[in-house]
Amino acid sequence: MGDQAIAGNGRILLKHGAGGRAMRDLIRQIFLSDADAPLSDMIGPGAMDDGAALRLGDQWLVITTDSYVIQPPFFPGGDIGRLAIAGTVNDLAMMGATEPLALTCAVVIEEGFARRDLERIQESMRAACRQAGVAVVTGDTKVMGRGELDGIIINTAGVAFTREVITDRGLKPGDRIVVTGTIGDHGLAVMACRHDLGLDTPLCSDVAPLNSMVRVVLEGADGAVSAMKDPTRGGLASALHEMAEKSGVGIELDQAAIPLRQETLAVSELLGIDPLLAANEGKAVLGVRAEAAAEVVAALRGHPLGMQAAVIGTCVAERPGVIVLDTGFGRRILNEPEGEPLPRIC
Amino acid sequence: MGDQAIAGNGRILLKHGAGGRAMRDLIRQIFLSDADAPLSDMIGPGAMDDGAALRLGDQWLVITTDSYVIQPPFFPGGDIGRLAIAGTVNDLAMMGATEPLALTCAVVIEEGFARRDLERIQESMRAACRQAGVAVVTGDTKVMGRGELDGIIINTAGVAFTREVITDRGLKPGDRIVVTGTIGDHGLAVMACRHDLGLDTPLCSDVAPLNSMVRVVLEGADGAVSAMKDPTRGGLASALHEMAEKSGVGIELDQAAIPLRQETLAVSELLGIDPLLAANEGKAVLGVRAEAAAEVVAALRGHPLGMQAAVIGTCVAERPGVIVLDTGFGRRILNEPEGEPLPRIC
Repeated sequence: MGDQAIAGNGRILLKHGAGGRAMRDLIRQIFLSDADAPLSDMIGPGAMDDGAALRLGDQWLVITTDSYVIQPPFFPGGDIGRLAIAGTVNDLAMMGATEPLALTCAVVIEEGFARRDLERIQESMRAACRQAGVAVVTGDTKVMGRGELDGIIINTAGVAFTREVITDRGLKPGDRIVVTGTIGDHGLAVMACRHDLGLDTPLCSDVAPLNSMVRVVLEGADGAVSAMKDPTRGGLASALHEMAEKSGVGIELDQAAIPLRQETLAVSELLGIDPLLAANEGKAVLGVRAEAAAEVVAALRGHPLGMQAAVIGTCVAERPGVIVLDTGFGRRILNEPEGEPLPRIC
Repeated sequence: MGDQAIAGNGRILLKHGAGGRAMRDLIRQIFLSDADAPLSDMIGPGAMDDGAALRLGDQWLVITTDSYVIQPPFFPGGDIGRLAIAGTVNDLAMMGATEPLALTCAVVIEEGFARRDLERIQESMRAACRQAGVAVVTGDTKVMGRGELDGIIINTAGVAFTREVITDRGLKPGDRIVVTGTIGDHGLAVMACRHDLGLDTPLCSDVAPLNSMVRVVLEGADGAVSAMKDPTRGGLASALHEMAEKSGVGIELDQAAIPLRQETLAVSELLGIDPLLAANEGKAVLGVRAEAAAEVVAALRGHPLGMQAAVIGTCVAERPGVIVLDTGFGRRILNEPEGEPLPRIC
């Protein structure tokens, strides 16, 4: 995005929706203000987590929302419908709320969109709901004129109760950083699809609802998980930066330990995109107390969606907010992306 | 829309998002199925009300969502931000949940959208939130490329607890139909704005959060309100048809009793659009037990947003689902619109 990203001129740029620093700055400047100061008993907008949590008696009601604008709407490994269910279920799960109570679904469709495609998307949403153990309980449908919207946008919001909230800011020096599987698959699969690379083995998105996997971990390891986030737009690099900055810790990563599929690596080299910056839609990053790290990884590996879970780094007190990557040939600072390199990746 | 509305050919048409029968049919056919059968203790998707209600102990958690695509985003009397707050607060209020707990807000913006306009919209959302006594607790921002989206879309979802749920299907023969004020103002104000009619007195949208007004009525008249709905897309005609059909009653309307602003009537005649079919964003239709109708109207008139409330009709056992309009010159059947005559009216 280069110059465009620097310019601005009072206009919204693609990077403002790209999940990185530019987006967070925009949200801070426009969408949050003193008027939105968190209520007491609320983990709210100021926290800029994956959702908000409201204290209700001895429980928290967690609420989250996302609009999905992915292009193309059908891609290897999934479609916008599966993404819209998994993405919102995962935002709830990342806050510790692994039993979603209900989802809403609002669809905006371009006039002329094929009815058959809408049916396929809806079937896919149903299947993802079954996998996550949740239902869409209410919805909305709008149609925009031909040329006023490129295809389809789906918004889902979700609510869930949880006794304990996990945030993305709980990392402490000494904590281990765990990822639940291979990195960059969604972003690079969608890019490969867009560029029609004609791969022998098509790279598939990892899009999946993670709540059942997270539940296993949280139930098995009481208090061991200090922070959680799903590395969607902006990828692992963006998620780790946000977690490190909010927690006030540095993170040292061991590049060799980061799980990466050969196909993903191949596409990333073809396209010149760092898989650490590419979106994931079926992975989580966890901060875990050092003494529980092996147990958490074992629990994850026992779940079909976590079989390649691994410890990839350690939190340190030095240089808060900085991510240092040990490449095996030396150490370098992993910069935070201004935003996801791809627009409309989710 | 004429022929286009008849054709179809497996493509989504504007009427499918227009709030009338075509939209309800699409939702029934694609978005609802046996798989979505309402859970016990839930007023859910099958009900196709303004939202869903989930039984939680001795309360109901009401959930609703809407995406707002109005064009233009700024119009006399409001803007898309005010609409996005009021619309969702009103959907909660129509189910009896007049104390919204929290809203979510997801914005999709076209690249190049003016930052200043985004700020104005955000200020307007804040003001509407203050009026409704609610806060946006979490959100999402996406940006689509120039030409991929015409301007801006805002989705809000809302949650609220209530002890009693009011539906849009509780009308009984003998119940009076009450509207809380003048009809058609939003739809015709937006149309006048789009057509740049150059009126001496610009017609203003009625967009407003109605929860405080509804609260007054529900608190004052225990059990008197049998059904409620806000006549948005498709206008009063569509709302009454839906209520009558679901309740299994007929409705006899007294046209002379329907509150109508002179300016609205003038615009409706200029544009050839029936105000009964035009959207409202600050009005409610109530079914009220006959003996309480005067009291409810008095309570409404005591609220700044209900000063022109009136009884406009009566429910009858005959001809369920049919709305008969007494014009003063005779009686005619008020047909249900296929959809709102205007796309992107909300």
